[in-house]
Amino acid sequence: MSEDQFDVVVVGAGLSGLSAARRLQKRNPQLSVMVLEARDRVGGRTVSKDLPAANGVDQWDMGGQWVSSSQTHVMELIRELGLEVFPQYTEGKKVHHVGGPHAKIKMYTTSMPSYSPLTLLDFTQVLRRIDHLTQTISVEDPMSSPNAELYDGMTLHTFMEKHIWTTQVKEELALCSRIVFGLEASQVSFLFFLMYSAAAGGTLRLLETTPGSGQEFRVKGGTQQLSEKLVEQIGKERVRLGAAVTTIYQVTTPSALGSPQIRYEPALPAERQRLTQCLPVGHMTKFIITYPTAFWKEKGFSGEIVARPSEDCPLSVTFDATSPRGNPALVGFITGVQARDWCDRKMEERRDGVISSLVKYLGPEASTYIHYEEKDWAKEEWSGGCPVNVMTPGMLTYYHPSLRKPFSRIHWAGTETATQWCGYIDGAIQAGQRAAMEVLAQMCPSSLSREELDAVRASLKHSDPKKGSKCKSSKCYYLFGMVMTAAALVTAYLLAKPELGFQWT
Amino acid sequence: MSEDQFDVVVVGAGLSGLSAARRLQKRNPQLSVMVLEARDRVGGRTVSKDLPAANGVDQWDMGGQWVSSSQTHVMELIRELGLEVFPQYTEGKKVHHVGGPHAKIKMYTTSMPSYSPLTLLDFTQVLRRIDHLTQTISVEDPMSSPNAELYDGMTLHTFMEKHIWTTQVKEELALCSRIVFGLEASQVSFLFFLMYSAAAGGTLRLLETTPGSGQEFRVKGGTQQLSEKLVEQIGKERVRLGAAVTTIYQVTTPSALGSPQIRYEPALPAERQRLTQCLPVGHMTKFIITYPTAFWKEKGFSGEIVARPSEDCPLSVTFDATSPRGNPALVGFITGVQARDWCDRKMEERRDGVISSLVKYLGPEASTYIHYEEKDWAKEEWSGGCPVNVMTPGMLTYYHPSLRKPFSRIHWAGTETATQWCGYIDGAIQAGQRAAMEVLAQMCPSSLSREELDAVRASLKHSDPKKGSKCKSSKCYYLFGMVMTAAALVTAYLLAKPELGFQWT
Repeated sequence: MSEDQFDVVVVGAGLSGLSAARRLQKRNPQLSVMVLEARDRVGGRTVSKDLPAANGVDQWDMGGQWVSSSQTHVMELIRELGLEVFPQYTEGKKVHHVGGPHAKIKMYTTSMPSYSPLTLLDFTQVLRRIDHLTQTISVEDPMSSPNAELYDGMTLHTFMEKHIWTTQVKEELALCSRIVFGLEASQVSFLFFLMYSAAAGGTLRLLETTPGSGQEFRVKGGTQQLSEKLVEQIGKERVRLGAAVTTIYQVTTPSALGSPQIRYEPALPAERQRLTQCLPVGHMTKFIITYPTAFWKEKGFSGEIVARPSEDCPLSVTFDATSPRGNPALVGFITGVQARDWCDRKMEERRDGVISSLVKYLGPEASTYIHYEEKDWAKEEWSGGCPVNVMTPGMLTYYHPSLRKPFSRIHWAGTETATQWCGYIDGAIQAGQRAAMEVLAQMCPSSLSREELDAVRASLKHSDPKKGSKCKSSKCYYLFGMVMTAAALVTAYLLAKPELGFQWT
Repeated sequence: MSEDQFDVVVVGAGLSGLSAARRLQKRNPQLSVMVLEARDRVGGRTVSKDLPAANGVDQWDMGGQWVSSSQTHVMELIRELGLEVFPQYTEGKKVHHVGGPHAKIKMYTTSMPSYSPLTLLDFTQVLRRIDHLTQTISVEDPMSSPNAELYDGMTLHTFMEKHIWTTQVKEELALCSRIVFGLEASQVSFLFFLMYSAAAGGTLRLLETTPGSGQEFRVKGGTQQLSEKLVEQIGKERVRLGAAVTTIYQVTTPSALGSPQIRYEPALPAERQRLTQCLPVGHMTKFIITYPTAFWKEKGFSGEIVARPSEDCPLSVTFDATSPRGNPALVGFITGVQARDWCDRKMEERRDGVISSLVKYLGPEASTYIHYEEKDWAKEEWSGGCPVNVMTPGMLTYYHPSLRKPFSRIHWAGTETATQWCGYIDGAIQAGQRAAMEVLAQMCPSSLSREELDAVRASLKHSDPKKGSKCKSSKCYYLFGMVMTAAALVTAYLLAKPELGFQWT
């Protein structure tokens, strides 16, 4: 255990934690900031890896990979750091294999598969209904939205059962939950789904590759660079890797003299504890397959496949992942119930299942790959899953106010706390910056403008003001590997005196 | 770290773990068994405490306290251990304050409050509907029940919204969820609710004090004695307190000679990991108030109060808790949303809120108590809450097979895994005995009869047979304080060779 002292300690060197550290430093260079990261690398749920490719070795993202022109926080960071984006490749036929066990494989080049008139009608009516509801949601304070309690008391699955007429569209929505959250529709609160859609500016944005949608651009050289370049700016000496925080003591020194310090280790408020108890994280394995040639393009395919779960097909969705340097590749995801069924098998079985599905959808050339690489985020000790922690029914209703509510000198970041593009890279950055502003507002308000101070106050307003946190007796462990949402979520700071002790290993 | 070796290590000295240890010993006295308990006491969620009372000091249960004639496992254990039960006192007027913010306080002595004809009709139809559904449920394999996926995809709240017409009955059911689970109806899978009711032999049994119901009897001297007396039988030297298991290594020794052992620490299968990720535990504070006289009996009250949540009333339900030696007391629960609203306040505030509610319902004598004692089980590091872990929607659908499925040489006990009176003391004993039988069936099948071996096989049949657990690379931490269901859940054993290593602190 080190005895160093800092003004602010950031727990987690993902995009949220690093954005918070950078913002603090920028606004007040006098502050001493230390970032502690459990892993031996920075980037959290973004990680880029060298893989064997057509022309030697090239880089691919094994975690978060897409950004969008509508994601202002990440686009600004990309500009600041001198990085470049390039569009997701989408030209050509898309493969669509959805609609019950006897569904036929469909190909389409338009924005939507060719549905029967009834299916199309159903699809349109349900999207319109969701869209309408999404527009009534306050992301900052979801419980103030109309019918909030009702919608939080039901699952996305219940909504689907009630408002969708056709099996085809039910399966489309089930796929949507699986692809977006890594979880099945029965596991997600409907209000949470609406809030998540609202934070992205609409449900379709979660799914599409069109301008403004979530899958619009990729980052040249990979998204982990965002974190690596932030570390360069912050200073390598201010980011400690392999430092897992195990305990946060919030210690008050009695005003009396040399008597042994009384050390309180206050537990988090019950509301916060229970919130983190029921935020299941998505289950997603990402794979990248490199090829000698982009045979799918040559055959007129875009590389996009959407497939229903079946016994012999592990994948839910794939896209073209050819690198900016022209090395052909496909990217895809094994997710939700498919992750459950495939994740405990041997890698070789999963790989063969993926390849044979690709052969079925794109042709025999799919079997002549150079390299198959996969990453099951559920097996990452400090993430537990990917892409995001969702809320089960009743969580928003009862515990939402504690989501961003500071606990004494502990402030919360992480993409799950974002109000714009919650769950995305962009949300991670927004949340980190917001947490930094909260800390600055308390430590050195003069470093903020009046408008910024007002914004901090407005953001904190939604945290239930009627209850303080008064329990002072039990232990407070921040076991980040187990509490799934914790990575990059804690921003804590020391006031002038060393009143806040961290233990790391 | 000790280097002792045992045939079977039982993790957790609650009723499930101790019942498992006792069963193992009884059936095969040659087996060396060690019980490891993180706390400095045995009994898990049962704990008895001396409190100041009318005649000096007397004992009350601060955890699980009721047993029933229909609970065969616990009743048999009580007989074996030479303990006695006595009936829950129920004579006199019951207080009922339910039915919207303007509800009037009602008194009744029948089995049900006097409802309006419409309310009564509504109550009857919904109970009949639930009862009918409960009878279709297979507790052993809930997913084989009719409409299982539909019911697991919805919350108890969704069912209520759909099938209850009156506010009054909606509030009754909400109270039922709060009292039985310590959670709100929107947080509980409807299929889980049906399974839980079925395991108890019907929904009303979860609520009533009638013969065969869950609140029929109390145990003279307290329920913790069950565990203490089990320890006497097992042998004190075979139960180690203050021994928190942190890691379970399942190590295989390579057949080659003196080369450094390869140590595998296999993670739990993903299914099991995800199941434990979303089993929120109830939120319940229990209080005991001792009085110089049982003034409520003198005034014709039974001591039973059922109250809707309101800003100034923390309690959901109370009962008479007068001791077998005649020391007057009341017992009550702060639970669900009321626990959320009151648990972070000072004890004195909660106490005063409880007392002033009792004054309102039972009269001014309620303020002249001798002692107020409370226990918030959410603040117990090794329980995290009380009375039981429930399943959120979608958990049964996707992860139920892993509930009782052994992982290599690790077997699962705990009341959450019971098929009779799941969540109760009785279920804890049943589950412990079942886990012991599984271990015996593998280690020394000759100690079981053919019928017993068949029963073990039948019970394991419901664990999905199609997938093995093949991941061998990541770390396996049994952090019992954080994984809420783990206390008393792991029964592990060593085969002839010391292949299974435990680390405890």
